[in-house]
Amino acid sequence: MENKNVYLFAEGNAQMRELLGGKGANLAEMTRIGLPVPTGFTVSTDACREYFKREQIIWDELREEVMVALRTLEVSTGKRFGDKDDPLLVSVRSGSVFSMPGMMDTVLNLGLNDETVVGLAKASGNERFAYDCYRRFIQMYSDVVLQVDHFYFERALEEKKRSLDVKYDTQLNGEALQELVKEYLKIVLKETKKPFPQDPLDQLILSIQAVFDSWHNQRAIVYRQIHKLPDHLGTAVNVQIMVFGNLGDDSGTGVAFTRNPSDGTNKLYGEFLVNAQGEDVVAGIRTPLDIAKMADHLPTIYTQFTELCDLLEKHYRDVQDIEFTVERGTLYLLQTRTGKRTAAAAVKIAVNMAEEGVLTKEEALLRVDPAQLNQLLHRRMDPDAKPEFIAKGLPASPGAASGEIVFDADEADRLASEGVKIILVRPETTPDDIHGIVAAQGVLTSRGGMTSHAAVVARGMGKSCISGCEDIKINVAAKTMTVGDRVFKERDVLSIDGSNGEVYAGMVELIDPVLSDEFTTLLEWTDATKDLGVRANADTPEDAQKARQFGATGIGLCRTEHMFMSQERLPVVQQMILANNEEERDSALAKLLPMQQSDFEGIFRAMDGFPVTIRLLDPPLHEFLPNQEDLLVDVTLLQERGNDPQQLREKEELLKQVRGLHEYNPMLGHRGCRLGLVTPAIYRMQALAIFRAAATLLAEGSNIVPEIMIPLVGHVTELKLMRALVVQAAEDVMAEAGCRFEYQVGTMIELPRACVTADQIATYADFFSFGTNDLTQTTFGYSRDDAEGKFLLHYLQQKILPENPFAVLDREGVGSLVKMAAEKGRATKPAIKLGICGEHGGDPSSIEFCHLVGLHYVSCSPFRVPIARLAAAHAKLNNK
Amino acid sequence: MENKNVYLFAEGNAQMRELLGGKGANLAEMTRIGLPVPTGFTVSTDACREYFKREQIIWDELREEVMVALRTLEVSTGKRFGDKDDPLLVSVRSGSVFSMPGMMDTVLNLGLNDETVVGLAKASGNERFAYDCYRRFIQMYSDVVLQVDHFYFERALEEKKRSLDVKYDTQLNGEALQELVKEYLKIVLKETKKPFPQDPLDQLILSIQAVFDSWHNQRAIVYRQIHKLPDHLGTAVNVQIMVFGNLGDDSGTGVAFTRNPSDGTNKLYGEFLVNAQGEDVVAGIRTPLDIAKMADHLPTIYTQFTELCDLLEKHYRDVQDIEFTVERGTLYLLQTRTGKRTAAAAVKIAVNMAEEGVLTKEEALLRVDPAQLNQLLHRRMDPDAKPEFIAKGLPASPGAASGEIVFDADEADRLASEGVKIILVRPETTPDDIHGIVAAQGVLTSRGGMTSHAAVVARGMGKSCISGCEDIKINVAAKTMTVGDRVFKERDVLSIDGSNGEVYAGMVELIDPVLSDEFTTLLEWTDATKDLGVRANADTPEDAQKARQFGATGIGLCRTEHMFMSQERLPVVQQMILANNEEERDSALAKLLPMQQSDFEGIFRAMDGFPVTIRLLDPPLHEFLPNQEDLLVDVTLLQERGNDPQQLREKEELLKQVRGLHEYNPMLGHRGCRLGLVTPAIYRMQALAIFRAAATLLAEGSNIVPEIMIPLVGHVTELKLMRALVVQAAEDVMAEAGCRFEYQVGTMIELPRACVTADQIATYADFFSFGTNDLTQTTFGYSRDDAEGKFLLHYLQQKILPENPFAVLDREGVGSLVKMAAEKGRATKPAIKLGICGEHGGDPSSIEFCHLVGLHYVSCSPFRVPIARLAAAHAKLNNK
Repeated sequence: MENKNVYLFAEGNAQMRELLGGKGANLAEMTRIGLPVPTGFTVSTDACREYFKREQIIWDELREEVMVALRTLEVSTGKRFGDKDDPLLVSVRSGSVFSMPGMMDTVLNLGLNDETVVGLAKASGNERFAYDCYRRFIQMYSDVVLQVDHFYFERALEEKKRSLDVKYDTQLNGEALQELVKEYLKIVLKETKKPFPQDPLDQLILSIQAVFDSWHNQRAIVYRQIHKLPDHLGTAVNVQIMVFGNLGDDSGTGVAFTRNPSDGTNKLYGEFLVNAQGEDVVAGIRTPLDIAKMADHLPTIYTQFTELCDLLEKHYRDVQDIEFTVERGTLYLLQTRTGKRTAAAAVKIAVNMAEEGVLTKEEALLRVDPAQLNQLLHRRMDPDAKPEFIAKGLPASPGAASGEIVFDADEADRLASEGVKIILVRPETTPDDIHGIVAAQGVLTSRGGMTSHAAVVARGMGKSCISGCEDIKINVAAKTMTVGDRVFKERDVLSIDGSNGEVYAGMVELIDPVLSDEFTTLLEWTDATKDLGVRANADTPEDAQKARQFGATGIGLCRTEHMFMSQERLPVVQQMILANNEEERDSALAKLLPMQQSDFEGIFRAMDGFPVTIRLLDPPLHEFLPNQEDLLVDVTLLQERGNDPQQLREKEELLKQVRGLHEYNPMLGHRGCRLGLVTPAIYRMQALAIFRAAATLLAEGSNIVPEIMIPLVGHVTELKLMRALVVQAAEDVMAEAGCRFEYQVGTMIELPRACVTADQIATYADFFSFGTNDLTQTTFGYSRDDAEGKFLLHYLQQKILPENPFAVLDREGVGSLVKMAAEKGRATKPAIKLGICGEHGGDPSSIEFCHLVGLHYVSCSPFRVPIARLAAAHAKLNNK
Repeated sequence: MENKNVYLFAEGNAQMRELLGGKGANLAEMTRIGLPVPTGFTVSTDACREYFKREQIIWDELREEVMVALRTLEVSTGKRFGDKDDPLLVSVRSGSVFSMPGMMDTVLNLGLNDETVVGLAKASGNERFAYDCYRRFIQMYSDVVLQVDHFYFERALEEKKRSLDVKYDTQLNGEALQELVKEYLKIVLKETKKPFPQDPLDQLILSIQAVFDSWHNQRAIVYRQIHKLPDHLGTAVNVQIMVFGNLGDDSGTGVAFTRNPSDGTNKLYGEFLVNAQGEDVVAGIRTPLDIAKMADHLPTIYTQFTELCDLLEKHYRDVQDIEFTVERGTLYLLQTRTGKRTAAAAVKIAVNMAEEGVLTKEEALLRVDPAQLNQLLHRRMDPDAKPEFIAKGLPASPGAASGEIVFDADEADRLASEGVKIILVRPETTPDDIHGIVAAQGVLTSRGGMTSHAAVVARGMGKSCISGCEDIKINVAAKTMTVGDRVFKERDVLSIDGSNGEVYAGMVELIDPVLSDEFTTLLEWTDATKDLGVRANADTPEDAQKARQFGATGIGLCRTEHMFMSQERLPVVQQMILANNEEERDSALAKLLPMQQSDFEGIFRAMDGFPVTIRLLDPPLHEFLPNQEDLLVDVTLLQERGNDPQQLREKEELLKQVRGLHEYNPMLGHRGCRLGLVTPAIYRMQALAIFRAAATLLAEGSNIVPEIMIPLVGHVTELKLMRALVVQAAEDVMAEAGCRFEYQVGTMIELPRACVTADQIATYADFFSFGTNDLTQTTFGYSRDDAEGKFLLHYLQQKILPENPFAVLDREGVGSLVKMAAEKGRATKPAIKLGICGEHGGDPSSIEFCHLVGLHYVSCSPFRVPIARLAAAHAKLNNK
């Protein structure tokens, strides 16, 4: 049929995702393979896009198609929509192409009105149930379709409970709920100036429209931004007959994962509530039972359910996240989807499933998102720390975090932007809190289960989260949190461990992560797959050791300036910089040489034969001097006070020298090889230190091949001269030590001019290492220090740039230059070694780019080495 | 003959320049066309290169060839080298491929020793002459070959004159000179520990060697650096029989130009000294007579000479610079070469010669070096100024200058590097003073003529120069200059006018140049030749007018920020920047709008229909705010004094705001279109002002097509959004004014990323204007503000870079990106208009590059428009 916009579940299948959305295609597939799915139909994403084209008006043909589909539901259930005796009720849910949990709006129990509610009461034989359905429907519909804040309804509910002196919703009887419905209807009339719509078909059409509209609501937009989903797809709408888990103790509802999504254990995992509707579980309002307890309450159903879970996991070849409802002893599966999981679980499940023979090793590799591994590489609490335990909640998302308590997402966002580490503490979270979760180190909620909003979102972001921590009483208005009789105020410090649910007062020391066996196995598999080598950026023997533990096969960037910064060396470095003549300078350099040499010896020992690329001094010298403004204040005060002419003279002299070295744009100033060219003695000292260290290691029996890297080369002559200097130093050391060793001399490619003239530069380079941080700065003309705090945020929010180019390598601009340089370098010297040592070396998309242009290795911070290894394998597998 | 290294003048011709050097080839050519040239031979540049290959040793075969050639000279003169009765004397002169006046060493009178001097006295019948020759020879030879400072000899000469109480050298008789020779020989023995060489052949070989060696002396190296000549060529050596202008009043020597090298008038121009040697003229020791005076002293010779001058100019088709000597009534031409000339002369001569039919117009265009035109475009003294006249010298190089007096080249160099404008004041200059002349605004010497070292060098550099200003007494040691009884000290201010030789006390107002008729004609000829359009960078109606006078056919860059800087506007701009809310900001912008509008109206009127490209605000906003360090000092003092809490609060608040806008690298910061994107209200105000001005002009009957230029675009989306903003403003103004006008929207291409993605950017651009200043900064990673004062000077001195990339466009690096952008831009939009508005737009080499990549126009400062027009014509003619 042409222009078909509405599909019965029975008409679709899993392949129709784009048209039916994820949920719709899934329900169709479930129906197709014979699972007990409540019947329903899907209004397609085509219809949604058409709807926006038509300026948000539902057109007649679409309305007609919906009515035809509705008729099918009436036939299959034997009920009629709007029937005063036994009305057909439906749910209306969004379903976009990519899963966006909690982001889109849902309306349940649609079809109820003042008349049909009476019919429902009759047909179900449960007046309480009927009015409970109606009041829930009114609240949801009002919230989603009529934009009436749910707060009004919740207040009315709380007042009703208080007036009747009951604690739980379930304690309200039919009469109370009927009264409540009347109040709800009054609220609607007051807030919307119109009575609540009584025509079920109007209700349905307006709900479909509201789902469509919600595609462009703020939280959906933010979610898509964070998860990098395209804006133009639109959402489908699923209309499905209602089944009820709240029709008594033979009813219930729950969610379950076929394996544990937190640690990956191959055991059914989930939660179940007797006599409840699905949203009670998801919203975390009542704390549910472990799924295993269902065996006690509904043993037959439990057996049927576990069998279906097996069937589903085999069918989909992956862990499933299933929503189900039991209505008076009949099991319905409402939804199944690939289960979101922590990185630890993803790793374990992928490796286990490969070991079980369900997946190939390559499939297993692709099942783990490299970016997600970050979670496992987060630090955890020092087991030797003795923090002050104060409460325990659910271990909703693993990892440890410390920070200042903040009760409000906006405030969290604001403080984090100032660099404050914060823990977001909320009774529960909603999609409106997403920016607060993004900003926080971790999240702590007093309510909600393992599948509550906070838990799901935090896991997705790899943030530590504890949910349902009921020992903690939170007063958002007063900005306090009480545990027992102890009161914590905003900005008091708290630590949480999302792996065990424990909450501690104060700051707790965090330590480095350790890799699980499955993780180690998975990383070993990457080595057989990937082409790219993975090195680490490391400046100390400790970092080098860490890098090796994580599987780095070399150091791609050892920055020598950090060695200049240490307490005892800085005065010598300053003496070198402020020297009045060559003699003074050389004497300072002579003191620095043995210090640098011992640094390099330590690093070479730690890397034990793996290649080590050492970058000679890069930052401008003024970075090692006292702050100019501080000096200016000192001088101003000394002048004003006039009491210490000697100190004044000294400070004035120092200020003069610091001013002499001041630069307007230090990023583009006298740094990198420019230092080596203008003051060759510095680079010579460093080269001697490196080669003497190499000679020492050689004498120890190690086979070290130092790779000396000249930074910031823009013109071939710079490298030519610096290479000659390094070669001379090597010859001198070999002569003095009476040995021969191998070494390489190469350059950072980090300026556009270096890319454009890479063919010339390659003549004097054994290797190129792309310094994509600086290359991004110069190619875009962005100072990173300035941009990220200023216009870049605006650019990302306004989508002027698709990504932060400092996080994800800009393939069109910076990438073109990298590609050009690689090609030109190879044209001159086919065997030239090519790597990348900017921060992009740890970013999966950037690593894929490096694979595509044929670099030999990426280099990243030690903690990102596992991510890079997996990303390198993905790059190979995804670009076969 | 294979390996021939020595050529008689009669064996060569003008085409053999590379082998014989300029002077050698010239002497050969002069000999070939029958001019009265003293016979001689040339040791080739091949021999020089071979000499350096052989580690600076003269090999036997070369010595043999020299002796054979020497024999020919003996035959032709009938004299013998080393003859005790009538010795043959020769001169030894360098002669490199490119003319390097005054830079290489010369030895005259070679062949004299204690015995031959007696023979010379006898043969010439003039003892005084013979010993004068000998003492000159000893001094020159000692200076050049033996490295004995000429100071010792000059001191001995001065003492001798004082002891005899005479004023001039010529007053020393034969006896006195004979004694002086003895003292000279003692000086040599004392300083070199060896007696003065007595074997004439040794003298000759060692002199040839000294000339070779002088190729690598410091001043030759500096000259080649300044004039961009290659180092590897080597020099030839010319050995020529001596003729003497100092054999009495029927002898003399002089130099002459076939036309006036200062203003181009077609009239013999030069100087003549009776009874003198050539170096007396060149060194400026005696002030010579005007060449016309020769008609009185030596009427026959004068007639012969003027006829030869005509012959020479016709033969060489260019003005000739001729050295000649009259020996006892016989005229010898020692040298002729293309006459160096001022830019004014070059223009007049080229145009006149084309009008005379000697040259085609295209040849005439190529005869004028565009870079040299700079001289004519220098400012001159305001005729209405009433400066205090203090002295008059020779008008050696035109143009006016004011500056502080400095007596020493090193000090001049140092002060100029600090930005001080200086006038170099010297008794006379030598090649060792070149760096001082480079550094100075102008040069004033108390001695020397129009062809003295100072005069020649200053003309070559287009610097103002007055020579031979004998009213001024200079005491270099005391650092004073005395005129009458008035004493000027170092760093007193002086003004000079090199066009008329007048010297004034204090600063004199300078005014804009006016173009001569010939200049105007020449520039008109460029229009028929060149492909490139030439526009000007102009920010005010006055600049626009100037640009039009110089022939600009549009404004390529109108910077709007200068309009923000004026006294009365800055407070409003600051109010806009520091606004606490949108209302305050908009109110400030509303005040700025009419001001900007009237600026644009003025510029549009001045350009009267020519295109005007207006760049929207580019610099970071903090440039408009008070200096952060000044504020810090104020706040520190207010805090310390504690006496004005109100002002302290205000200053603290302002400091906080200034700090908030502070950037680490403003060049790469929040500027350019980033301002427009984050604060669209600023760009909208500017666009409205431009379009309202256009509407006003349209109403006046002008046909204005404003070209709005968005700066610093790096990503296509930036331009897309800013274009939309500009289009909206245009539509709004057209609606409000009820008219339609044309306009274009384009962008600066000044970031590497813009070049690489120019195909995308072109989608939204009607034109590209290459901002090669910033493109050079980002491509090289150089901050111009920092580099030029710091490492870049070192880079140029050490030849790490061949040129200053901010002066001459770097074709390999920046140029590749420009070419790529031009090609990509055209691929998307074949009709896209392409121009350049960086400073390179006024540099001839860069203009040639623009021609080669097919840009449509260059834009430069108004004063460089004529240079650009001529350079554009050259680019076309040289790349046909």
